Amino acid sequence: MSSVGRPERRGARKSIATVSLSGPLSEKLTAVAAAGFDGVEIFENDLLGTALSPEEIRLRCADLGLTIDLYQPLRDMEAVPEDVFVRNLRRAERKFEVMRRLGADLLLVCSSVDPRAVDDDALAAGHLRRLAERAQEHGIRVAYEALAWGRHVHTYGHAWRLVEQADHPALGTCLDSFHILSRGSEVDGIQDIPGDKIFFLQLADAPLMAMDVLQWSRHYRCFPGQGGLDVASVAAAAVRAGYTGPLSLEVFNDVFRQGEAAATAVDALRSLLLLEESAGLARPPAPPVPEGFAFAEIATSDTEPVRSVLDALGFARTGRHTTKPVELWEQGRARVLLNSGASGGRCGPSLAAVGLETADPAQAAHRAEALLAPVVPRRRGAGDAPLDAVAAPDGTELFFCRTDHPDHPSWTGDFEPVVTVSTAGSAGGQGHVDRIDHVALTQPWHQFDEAVLFYRGVLGLAVDESLDLADPYGLFRSRAVAAPDGGVRFALNVAPGPGADDNRLQHIALATDDVLAAARAARERGAALLPIPANYYDDLAARHELPHRRIDELRELGILYDRDAHGEFLHCYTAVTGRVFFELVQRTGGYRGYGAQNAGIRLAAQHAQQHHQHHP
Amino acid sequence: MSSVGRPERRGARKSIATVSLSGPLSEKLTAVAAAGFDGVEIFENDLLGTALSPEEIRLRCADLGLTIDLYQPLRDMEAVPEDVFVRNLRRAERKFEVMRRLGADLLLVCSSVDPRAVDDDALAAGHLRRLAERAQEHGIRVAYEALAWGRHVHTYGHAWRLVEQADHPALGTCLDSFHILSRGSEVDGIQDIPGDKIFFLQLADAPLMAMDVLQWSRHYRCFPGQGGLDVASVAAAAVRAGYTGPLSLEVFNDVFRQGEAAATAVDALRSLLLLEESAGLARPPAPPVPEGFAFAEIATSDTEPVRSVLDALGFARTGRHTTKPVELWEQGRARVLLNSGASGGRCGPSLAAVGLETADPAQAAHRAEALLAPVVPRRRGAGDAPLDAVAAPDGTELFFCRTDHPDHPSWTGDFEPVVTVSTAGSAGGQGHVDRIDHVALTQPWHQFDEAVLFYRGVLGLAVDESLDLADPYGLFRSRAVAAPDGGVRFALNVAPGPGADDNRLQHIALATDDVLAAARAARERGAALLPIPANYYDDLAARHELPHRRIDELRELGILYDRDAHGEFLHCYTAVTGRVFFELVQRTGGYRGYGAQNAGIRLAAQHAQQHHQHHP
Repeated sequence: MSSVGRPERRGARKSIATVSLSGPLSEKLTAVAAAGFDGVEIFENDLLGTALSPEEIRLRCADLGLTIDLYQPLRDMEAVPEDVFVRNLRRAERKFEVMRRLGADLLLVCSSVDPRAVDDDALAAGHLRRLAERAQEHGIRVAYEALAWGRHVHTYGHAWRLVEQADHPALGTCLDSFHILSRGSEVDGIQDIPGDKIFFLQLADAPLMAMDVLQWSRHYRCFPGQGGLDVASVAAAAVRAGYTGPLSLEVFNDVFRQGEAAATAVDALRSLLLLEESAGLARPPAPPVPEGFAFAEIATSDTEPVRSVLDALGFARTGRHTTKPVELWEQGRARVLLNSGASGGRCGPSLAAVGLETADPAQAAHRAEALLAPVVPRRRGAGDAPLDAVAAPDGTELFFCRTDHPDHPSWTGDFEPVVTVSTAGSAGGQGHVDRIDHVALTQPWHQFDEAVLFYRGVLGLAVDESLDLADPYGLFRSRAVAAPDGGVRFALNVAPGPGADDNRLQHIALATDDVLAAARAARERGAALLPIPANYYDDLAARHELPHRRIDELRELGILYDRDAHGEFLHCYTAVTGRVFFELVQRTGGYRGYGAQNAGIRLAAQHAQQHHQHHP
Repeated sequence: MSSVGRPERRGARKSIATVSLSGPLSEKLTAVAAAGFDGVEIFENDLLGTALSPEEIRLRCADLGLTIDLYQPLRDMEAVPEDVFVRNLRRAERKFEVMRRLGADLLLVCSSVDPRAVDDDALAAGHLRRLAERAQEHGIRVAYEALAWGRHVHTYGHAWRLVEQADHPALGTCLDSFHILSRGSEVDGIQDIPGDKIFFLQLADAPLMAMDVLQWSRHYRCFPGQGGLDVASVAAAAVRAGYTGPLSLEVFNDVFRQGEAAATAVDALRSLLLLEESAGLARPPAPPVPEGFAFAEIATSDTEPVRSVLDALGFARTGRHTTKPVELWEQGRARVLLNSGASGGRCGPSLAAVGLETADPAQAAHRAEALLAPVVPRRRGAGDAPLDAVAAPDGTELFFCRTDHPDHPSWTGDFEPVVTVSTAGSAGGQGHVDRIDHVALTQPWHQFDEAVLFYRGVLGLAVDESLDLADPYGLFRSRAVAAPDGGVRFALNVAPGPGADDNRLQHIALATDDVLAAARAARERGAALLPIPANYYDDLAARHELPHRRIDELRELGILYDRDAHGEFLHCYTAVTGRVFFELVQRTGGYRGYGAQNAGIRLAAQHAQQHHQHHP
């Protein structure tokens, strides 16, 4: 009966309610422990549905090194008619017995929703006191929480007043960030609660939505940092008040219920670690925000199709890895690695890794590791430069690089130069592409919010609004994360519908200051650019006062157009190769977006093209 | 250029907006025509995303026998600053040109959401008049509609006042049931609008949800009859006012966007046909409400596993089909057919068909066919009784029967008696089962609402509330449809998560008046009953004041317990065989439900059992 080994971390103890994860109880417990949590809240329905007895659950948790921090929930105890209260007290006694067998000593009681409950604080406090007296006889403490939709008690302040009035050592309050913030309550009052009377702290975020609070809570809660609530302020206030118990996640979410428990548990713990940082409760290594893209790496068993696209786009093959089957292609400051040694590539070429320029690669990797990103094991040759790399939740490998800097070994040192004559001219960039503008990564459908939090929290990038774009086969969600100076930008997408995960497209957007020349040159060198419907250009002429000649040029080359308050955006796409394609983008006058206005057109054109390939 | 043949129907012309369906425009048009619609609304984004020119769309529609009833939408025309209006009018002129090429002569204009729009009816009416004047020059009419979230114009009454004030023959109003009903507007005012000024009628339903109306509209609209709005009242009022145009569906729905266009189009048209019936605008054959289950038919290539379950449950094999490999098993009034001649059964035994007792089988089939249910072709033997059968949207075949009635040939006549000695005693029902209580059908995830509407509308069953039940792997939706007398009940379910469709479980619930005896007998005869966790019974003792002995009996047999205001419900389950299992249910005192309270326990136990089977 040994406790599972786990990484050493400081900060508060961390816990999670079993209802936050998918699967049967035993698998949830394994996932919770493997992620590195210290404890769990046992949600009653999980206990009822398992064949494990309470004693077996207790043993299982002990084996896994998990404490059972809370048993939940008991409902409708306070301010109900006396006969109902007596029946409920009898029910509570049964639960005390279950808790004894579980080895749990803290019980969550939610404020009444029973329509028979009355608005009578004295009666409510009296009931809570009687419950606490019984609990105490069993060595159990009661944490009373205000549900946002409680019948008469729906603010944490009211719940605390009842606890204070009941005045029993076995009775305290439970704070839940969702219930507090969803009603717009101020968190300042938390400081007025004596820390030792805050028996428990549940943390959950949620996207800001104008909807019924009960439905919002039951279906759309998410982990802290994934939504729009200031969850850190609740945690900080509780700790300032003197709360010393665990930070515990309680998230009801339709998507998490379907996700894989092991991955969700890791994402959940990462969100707590980031919350501790933003609440000033812990200090993981600070993020050295990435300054640019060092490279994008495409894995493929057959390099030829990507080679010919790169060549047509004006890239030249400039290097060959000294120990691995990896080619370096360059144009301006844009670099693409073509790796034919990697496994995978079942669906043809795919985007396997992204190199990020950073002032301190070791520190960036250290932060990522502290925030639970798996370190990528590298099969390094004897003379290869050290590489700091981690895997993002979607499997993309992120390399932290300091390219060609005198104080740091550079990954480019592992490449020997090759001299090739590109059809675009001499080697290394006579084309129109200057650098990588952004990388677009389609996420697994059930991990979108986790991915956004990862790229934001681990890399220190800023997050744009979430957009819903219309794909012919459903809504396509997209959210950009970017460094403040725009040197690194990711567009994180999630494709609609089951089955979409099987063919997640990724793309590399290349910046140019003359997209028309770049597109024309690419076409002349044989690139297949995505055809854009003529109807789009008729509409463009209706929407914007662009000169006819300008529109004709865009139409001829299949270039899309967008405009925001800051400037213009012109962009076009190559055909899809495997799971990868390229975009050529031109930003003028400080345009900030990614051409979301045109996404539906692009997606429809890609579907049409793929359909055409499959049904020629 | 011939029009596609389609079934003759009476009633109003029927149309659908292309945005209501999934896929590229050309596939949408094909699906719309194949379902039997008369026309379409072309949604602008569908036009922009297609490689078909407006002329080609016009030809395609003509070939398919579809009229283009509306082009939509044009926005932000009225009450904006003059310079914006002039630009927008220029935009409108471009759209008139597109419409000329399309051969469409009716344009939808939505009330302004532009923040620059002002609250000035005279200005708004003036702008609408100027727009109508221009439209008229192109032979185009304008239908002006109030969006529920329009900046200043958000009721149909207000939109009509502006149209009246603008007073131009090319300007009318468009009514949209969602925009009207979502704001709780009374429909009585519709009668005050001259019928010839109602240029168009868009119909959409939505589930009742307390949420932001724009989000509600964009993601959760559904076809009439699938939600909670009284869409028929809007249609009836418009027709009473003298509207003679098409009934047109305009549904934005995240699920339909992902579904298959052909199936969605059929479900859509069925919803319009049912709407016409409930609005008193058409009279399909009335539904002879089914009076009971004639049989349930299980298809399987290997009959042995189901045979042994049936035998253990007390069924006896009583008949053999004279021309097909189908066995009849009986107990009390419950009949199960075991068909080893059907195709399919890839995943083991599955529920293929349900026989419904009805006073008029031909009429029932006639109604189903009029409501677009495909007629099931039967390979009948020479002497077989005629069978009236249709397929439900989930593929389940529904047979309309009049069993053993002197005035009607009975399907039972196709079976010859066999004499077998059941281990349960003599043939034909010495067991505890009396009849089929209900049949539970798991639906494809994207067709749940359509299925509910089918069972309600086609069969004339009444619909219960929709329930969300917690499955270990996600939320499980369930909705019951039943005949008023409870003689026929279906529980329609949808399992969570992508991939769940691959293994849709179905079950047959058998009514008994002594579930303890029935379960005990089944167990003695070797049935594997689903094990229920002991924790459930500890909780049962906490929730209900049941005698200890009673709870011990339930625990011993794995029987679940529920109670409502009317009575009690006791039930237990057999293990799953292929995709099928059986439930034994006992209702006392008029209990109306299906044990939803216990569904999470049952689902967890089934997952545990299947997991155990796969990982012994």
